[in-house]
Amino acid sequence: MSRSPGKKQENHKISRELFVLTYGALVAQLCKDYEKDEDVNACLDRMGYSIGIRLIDDFLARSAVKRCRSYSETADMIAQVAFKMYLGVTPSVSCSSAMGNEFSLILDKNPLVDFVEELPAERASLCYCNILCGVIRGALEMVHLAAEVTFLQDRLKGDAVTEIGITFLRKPEDRKHKRN
Amino acid sequence: MSRSPGKKQENHKISRELFVLTYGALVAQLCKDYEKDEDVNACLDRMGYSIGIRLIDDFLARSAVKRCRSYSETADMIAQVAFKMYLGVTPSVSCSSAMGNEFSLILDKNPLVDFVEELPAERASLCYCNILCGVIRGALEMVHLAAEVTFLQDRLKGDAVTEIGITFLRKPEDRKHKRN
Repeated sequence: MSRSPGKKQENHKISRELFVLTYGALVAQLCKDYEKDEDVNACLDRMGYSIGIRLIDDFLARSAVKRCRSYSETADMIAQVAFKMYLGVTPSVSCSSAMGNEFSLILDKNPLVDFVEELPAERASLCYCNILCGVIRGALEMVHLAAEVTFLQDRLKGDAVTEIGITFLRKPEDRKHKRN
Repeated sequence: MSRSPGKKQENHKISRELFVLTYGALVAQLCKDYEKDEDVNACLDRMGYSIGIRLIDDFLARSAVKRCRSYSETADMIAQVAFKMYLGVTPSVSCSSAMGNEFSLILDKNPLVDFVEELPAERASLCYCNILCGVIRGALEMVHLAAEVTFLQDRLKGDAVTEIGITFLRKPEDRKHKRN
């Protein structure tokens, strides 16, 4: 973690408020562009994916983490290192399947929604922070992990917490090995 | 996980990379939405304005700065306190008119364009970072300072530096006073 001169470290950070408001402008623009919430959600996911496949290099370079040996380690890494590094928060992680490939990241506080009180009634299906799902999916794909990432709970929709579900998809080779 | 004071400060910061990539997604979306660069620029400026009129409260609360007594002080405040706080960089300031109401913020390094090499040929008139002009304009308006804010130079367009021009507009009352 030796990111020497404090200055350089500092320069990697910007104000969260500016980010949150800029993200809000992005979502508002997409809501203008697309009538259906599903289309906005899909667009945010696609944008996130494009970001994730680029951000992973930055993450691997700056975190200097070692290769994860299990889905569980990977989920912990996303929560404890990546979320901390990029959003300044650390979700808690729980494994939600006996198969060991489904995890939940649970956020008591979602830094992306600071200035958002609630979703407008006509946007009840909007996954406001769906870009995060795309980012995680894109970044994982670049380390050869296919995953489905979706919001399972959202405080913006009245849930008690915000919960992002990550389901690691078995690779075709895995399945083949199992069958043989 | 006690939330000590240092922690709180830390929570106001997020990774610049994530911001820069998200901003890039926003600009790309607007380029899809609008054929003309001028329309993209205007939209970024409007978005920035909406952000600026909200961000000013955060700025005043967190910076605890005193009221500026001159345009020159205001320009310095924007460069040395606001840019530093929100973008982690400090532009240099120069006054560019004998009237004392035109200033330039000169950025050797523009943190918003980290991942952008150059503008595509068909987007030669795009002011990629025009959101910043809107933010400054909006924030100034909320402290009763009308200003025109535009990019005068842009490294993305081959200029040696990035230069944002701020022209403070005399208030109608000022003019009246002068006439009388």
